[in-house]
Amino acid sequence: MKKRQAVVIAVLGCCLTAGCATVKPVQRYGWVTGLKPEKMAYYKELHGKPWPGVVAKLKDCHIQNYSIYLAELEPGRHYLFSYLEYTGDDFQADMKKMAADPTTQRWWKETDPCQQPVSTKKDKGIWMDMQRVFFLE
Amino acid sequence: MKKRQAVVIAVLGCCLTAGCATVKPVQRYGWVTGLKPEKMAYYKELHGKPWPGVVAKLKDCHIQNYSIYLAELEPGRHYLFSYLEYTGDDFQADMKKMAADPTTQRWWKETDPCQQPVSTKKDKGIWMDMQRVFFLE
Repeated sequence: MKKRQAVVIAVLGCCLTAGCATVKPVQRYGWVTGLKPEKMAYYKELHGKPWPGVVAKLKDCHIQNYSIYLAELEPGRHYLFSYLEYTGDDFQADMKKMAADPTTQRWWKETDPCQQPVSTKKDKGIWMDMQRVFFLE
Repeated sequence: MKKRQAVVIAVLGCCLTAGCATVKPVQRYGWVTGLKPEKMAYYKELHGKPWPGVVAKLKDCHIQNYSIYLAELEPGRHYLFSYLEYTGDDFQADMKKMAADPTTQRWWKETDPCQQPVSTKKDKGIWMDMQRVFFLE
């Protein structure tokens, strides 16, 4: 194999296997829920130092680049907004796997009582899916 | 140069220059604003087919992975949530450059009247910064 061939193969191999953002398929999710004002300090404390087992399970379930933002939209009305990226092949299966994890279940016992689902949410559960109306790669 | 050296240099070069997500420093922003219900259809139409000049200027100003989500949080009260990533060295300078772009100015003449800043926003401008309370790489 000549030097130039080796370089071309190495570059292709790197871009296909090393996690270049332009190659890896990603599903993006935006979610919203309410946050009870009296629970804000505890919610922030938990999420400032998330339990290692919870973080490990998120990664095990192919979640990455996951941010939660907080905003007060009306006086005394606080909301949490999640943006996360999923890189696996079966989102529902991975969410079931996460829900079956004992550490994650204990985490949710702490976080669920902090949150207040929005009044317009029709199904059960804490977070409401938002509709994406714009995307720039 | 031997073949193995060529491969090592090519792999390093790829990871440093080809945009691997793990190498590039990124600043993340979360913003929120209101959306007037009577302007929802037009706002969606605009953002479903954003003007090429606006998209080009966003990229020129080092914005990437930019999503806008829509949700109705109280009956008749709609909000927009932005998540975007900035990869440049001077966010304020790039925002000034964007604001000076004639195409972007024309775009904002269409979009600004659709939006309704949230009532708790203290400074002027359309979008309110949100506070990030959690992040997973």
